[in-house]
Amino acid sequence: MYGTAVAIFLVILVAALQGSEPPDSPFPYHIPLDPEGILELSWNVSYVQETIHFQLQVRGLRAGVLFGMSDRGEMENADLIVLWTDGDRAYFADAWSDQEGQVHLDPQQDYQLLQAKRTPNSLSLLFKRPFVTCDPKDYVIEDDTVHLVYGILEEPFQSLEAINTLGLHAGLQRVQLLKPEVPTPAMPADVQTMDIRAPDVLIPDNETTYWCYVIELPLHFPRHHIIMYEAIVTKGNEALVHHMEVFQCAAESEDYPKFNGPCDSKMKPERLNYCRHVLAAWALGAKEHFTTQKKLVSPLGARSPPDFSDWKFITTIQGRYKGRRDSSGIRLHYTATLRHYDAGIMELGLVYTPLMAIPPQETAFVLTGYCTDKCTLKALPDSGIHIFASQLHTHLTGRKVVTVLARDGQERKVVNRDNHYSPHFQEIRMLKKVVTVHQGDVLITSCTYNTENKTLATVGGFGISEEMCVNYVHYYPQTQLELCKSAVDDGFLQKYFHTVNRFSSEEVCTYPWASVPQQFASVPWNSFNRATLKALYDYAPISMHCNKTSAVRFPGEWNLQPLPKITSTLEEPTPRCPIRQPQSPTSPTVVITAEEDAE
Amino acid sequence: MYGTAVAIFLVILVAALQGSEPPDSPFPYHIPLDPEGILELSWNVSYVQETIHFQLQVRGLRAGVLFGMSDRGEMENADLIVLWTDGDRAYFADAWSDQEGQVHLDPQQDYQLLQAKRTPNSLSLLFKRPFVTCDPKDYVIEDDTVHLVYGILEEPFQSLEAINTLGLHAGLQRVQLLKPEVPTPAMPADVQTMDIRAPDVLIPDNETTYWCYVIELPLHFPRHHIIMYEAIVTKGNEALVHHMEVFQCAAESEDYPKFNGPCDSKMKPERLNYCRHVLAAWALGAKEHFTTQKKLVSPLGARSPPDFSDWKFITTIQGRYKGRRDSSGIRLHYTATLRHYDAGIMELGLVYTPLMAIPPQETAFVLTGYCTDKCTLKALPDSGIHIFASQLHTHLTGRKVVTVLARDGQERKVVNRDNHYSPHFQEIRMLKKVVTVHQGDVLITSCTYNTENKTLATVGGFGISEEMCVNYVHYYPQTQLELCKSAVDDGFLQKYFHTVNRFSSEEVCTYPWASVPQQFASVPWNSFNRATLKALYDYAPISMHCNKTSAVRFPGEWNLQPLPKITSTLEEPTPRCPIRQPQSPTSPTVVITAEEDAE
Repeated sequence: MYGTAVAIFLVILVAALQGSEPPDSPFPYHIPLDPEGILELSWNVSYVQETIHFQLQVRGLRAGVLFGMSDRGEMENADLIVLWTDGDRAYFADAWSDQEGQVHLDPQQDYQLLQAKRTPNSLSLLFKRPFVTCDPKDYVIEDDTVHLVYGILEEPFQSLEAINTLGLHAGLQRVQLLKPEVPTPAMPADVQTMDIRAPDVLIPDNETTYWCYVIELPLHFPRHHIIMYEAIVTKGNEALVHHMEVFQCAAESEDYPKFNGPCDSKMKPERLNYCRHVLAAWALGAKEHFTTQKKLVSPLGARSPPDFSDWKFITTIQGRYKGRRDSSGIRLHYTATLRHYDAGIMELGLVYTPLMAIPPQETAFVLTGYCTDKCTLKALPDSGIHIFASQLHTHLTGRKVVTVLARDGQERKVVNRDNHYSPHFQEIRMLKKVVTVHQGDVLITSCTYNTENKTLATVGGFGISEEMCVNYVHYYPQTQLELCKSAVDDGFLQKYFHTVNRFSSEEVCTYPWASVPQQFASVPWNSFNRATLKALYDYAPISMHCNKTSAVRFPGEWNLQPLPKITSTLEEPTPRCPIRQPQSPTSPTVVITAEEDAE
Repeated sequence: MYGTAVAIFLVILVAALQGSEPPDSPFPYHIPLDPEGILELSWNVSYVQETIHFQLQVRGLRAGVLFGMSDRGEMENADLIVLWTDGDRAYFADAWSDQEGQVHLDPQQDYQLLQAKRTPNSLSLLFKRPFVTCDPKDYVIEDDTVHLVYGILEEPFQSLEAINTLGLHAGLQRVQLLKPEVPTPAMPADVQTMDIRAPDVLIPDNETTYWCYVIELPLHFPRHHIIMYEAIVTKGNEALVHHMEVFQCAAESEDYPKFNGPCDSKMKPERLNYCRHVLAAWALGAKEHFTTQKKLVSPLGARSPPDFSDWKFITTIQGRYKGRRDSSGIRLHYTATLRHYDAGIMELGLVYTPLMAIPPQETAFVLTGYCTDKCTLKALPDSGIHIFASQLHTHLTGRKVVTVLARDGQERKVVNRDNHYSPHFQEIRMLKKVVTVHQGDVLITSCTYNTENKTLATVGGFGISEEMCVNYVHYYPQTQLELCKSAVDDGFLQKYFHTVNRFSSEEVCTYPWASVPQQFASVPWNSFNRATLKALYDYAPISMHCNKTSAVRFPGEWNLQPLPKITSTLEEPTPRCPIRQPQSPTSPTVVITAEEDAE
């Protein structure tokens, strides 16, 4: 990055220890921060102390390193730790960057350095931080996606304030830091494994590669239950393979075309869009094993009707690695000894329809989809269902997703919320607490979109430039209800277009025979038309999709349904501030450097 | 209040002094808190230390007293000091009440007791508090209206936590605590005085009495300048007389009917509604003298054209005082030696028209009136005008008022803001800093209304059940611009009613020949119609009143004007937290009691 980088190797003799606690347990979670594997983060979580211990391993340290968190992965307005040298001594500090990227010392030092160890080629920093610090410059660590950021210092800085994140070799990595503590069940004796992996793919020269591969189950494969799965990543590709998913293909078609190629290829058969039920998903930073809980198991193989015999497998590779090959995949552990319940997957949120649209140039436009009391009353068993995992899904403009359960008009609990949702990081997440949905409950899924870069409205649909708002919830016992989603009533949307025309001074009319996307495309997006569309979505009756398998509705009247009335909403909890320890230092910790070696 | 009140007289020997500072200066401001005059508050303000010293005088103290501040004068969610006894010792503490009225000790003790003195019949507490404490339970003292609250303890309490404000003898008093420091100018030798006072009024038996009295200036009274005025309150009525105002009558009529009676009397001539230009105003808690600044003087007597020869004088009496008489008034100090400039009064905000309406059941609906660049360009002198005082005005549902100055599409400064505005407390307030308005500047006045108790829309108008949104700004040099106000374009409001009809499922139509209030009365107030009205007011073109004297507009096109485009808005400043003194105590201060005297 710097033309004449000064290679300063820090040899740390004594680390300034503050109450030198070792971590309570080894680190169950690991993630490479950069594609080159220079920085690797390990961490564990203490829910009792509401604290995370981090271990940051830096290979080939030059003059220092920045690590931290920010809202969406930017280096500005970030909550940081900084290890730097002035050429003489080395320092560690809790810091923050302002909106110009300028680094400042935090008045409150909440990251606490516990140990700094040097091995021949690397430096390892051990530090801890509470989830919540109540320092307004600190990131609040919550259950959802966290955008980790890093920067590499290649030359000394006279002071912390001399550092600007602009122009540093920097990057981001998304991860869920606060993973739930799910115990690993013992494997039964009859456990078998099946590997689903990319067929020795030659990685194309793209920034990001999504590789699609269709696999067929062996004919007449008997019914089993999957009890665990794990990632098997090709050696050397640990920092490249970002994300892997196995989708079941819907039973609409008996036979799916075989395919092996980039997911955005024009050659990819359109019918593969129906392969969207996630069976297994793994992402960087996940625990080695994803275990289904006791009783909570996904069926594998024959089931009565339908029989999902095709799977689509996607590997996501990040970074340009021309010529490199990858055969990563997912290993399923399954058993023929069937468990008590089948687990099911249900879609909540919005119907894939252009009726739901986001105006352009919005920073936080919200669309909401409902699973109404009428549908849960009709489709759920008397004893209700139990949601144990959730995967949130939008396309590229999605920024937040939340599903809330309401009962008797009152919001009762959050099923899953991600206020830092990224469409580039869609995990199946185990819920900390299983959520039981009873007959008559309402499930409300809201997605927040950012369309600042768009010039036209973004309408709902399957296409990557269209939008979705979905929560795939994993639950048991399996029911016939496959999707419970809504969209605004078409007739009311036409009234909206009529109002737009009436208020339009330019007499630009959207013609009644135009398609909905065409009508949206001709709306002049002024403040009135924006606010009125929002008001329409918050008011107009909805059309419900309370469906068994695709397009087969439960019997009943599902059009022109009233919006669920919610009289009391859940407030986002204000984070509890930890009890302050007797005056933490407000100056950097000095890390003694013994040797300085100029290149 | 309590059947068997325990009269405990506290004799305080030694007060627990914390850095026993005397107040920097005597107390320039005084206000009785209750109508009986049991509690009297004096205070001074140090803008350098950002601290207020309070002196609370309690006559006939029983078992204790609560004093503090809350959002709108309620005893719940209040920031309090509590002086109480457990029958043995007396205590002083910084406390707060929750939404059930339950009193709690503040974790941070920001009210600091400096002195407690006893005279034969009263107790006097001296304490201080910073404007801003950064304790989330503390009220932030700002420039605007503060709702002071008090409660009287008639029996001992074993602990602070045993006190609930519910059922206490309690009340409120509104005041501006942070008054600007305006130096008193020397009076010239030729100063004369004129008393304008109620003519020995027999106070009616009402909770609140507004008494109106029309006064005529002597015929051919020569031109003078008012340089100061002060309140003259009838002896013994100090806690009753709440508010007094002298209004100039508009020059539309040569002659106003004489009147002497309650302002809400059916006998009051309607023409007196044109007497609305405030010449002088005094309210409880104001300094003894209101001095017009150097150069900033109101003309008195002959001026070319028009000649305001009639005044309306209003005294406001609070509380039932059947049989008592009052002759309070305002004394004007004026001089024949004319100063350099005449001061003028200009109306900003909304036109008095039903086109601007607030839906019922709104907790914080905002209406905004504009004084556009086109009008200031046309009507202001090259050198601009200087606003030195402001009086905010709404009717009964008004809760907040603010006027902001914008230049080149950017909000630049707040002219006057009251986030705790009360229609029952309308003062002329001197601005801390004179605001200069240049040609081409925009003045935006926004009012926030609470219509939770209404069932129909509240439309704009003169009536007390209608609403206004006005800022009377006092400025110099006087110009011909008497009002600069706006309202939504009538044609666009009709488009709104059309949209309401189209979306109304019940096919309820507002007929085109109905009046605007009738049309508003027939709107079914659902979320769509509320949000769309808001969207209309934020978008639709306006009709400007850029007027000389009533109804005479400056030449130009003032209809269908675009709303001013504001690209950057001022953020409300986040209060700066004071640097914390080395650990203030988090337990009550013990106030030693020596004598206990049971009844």
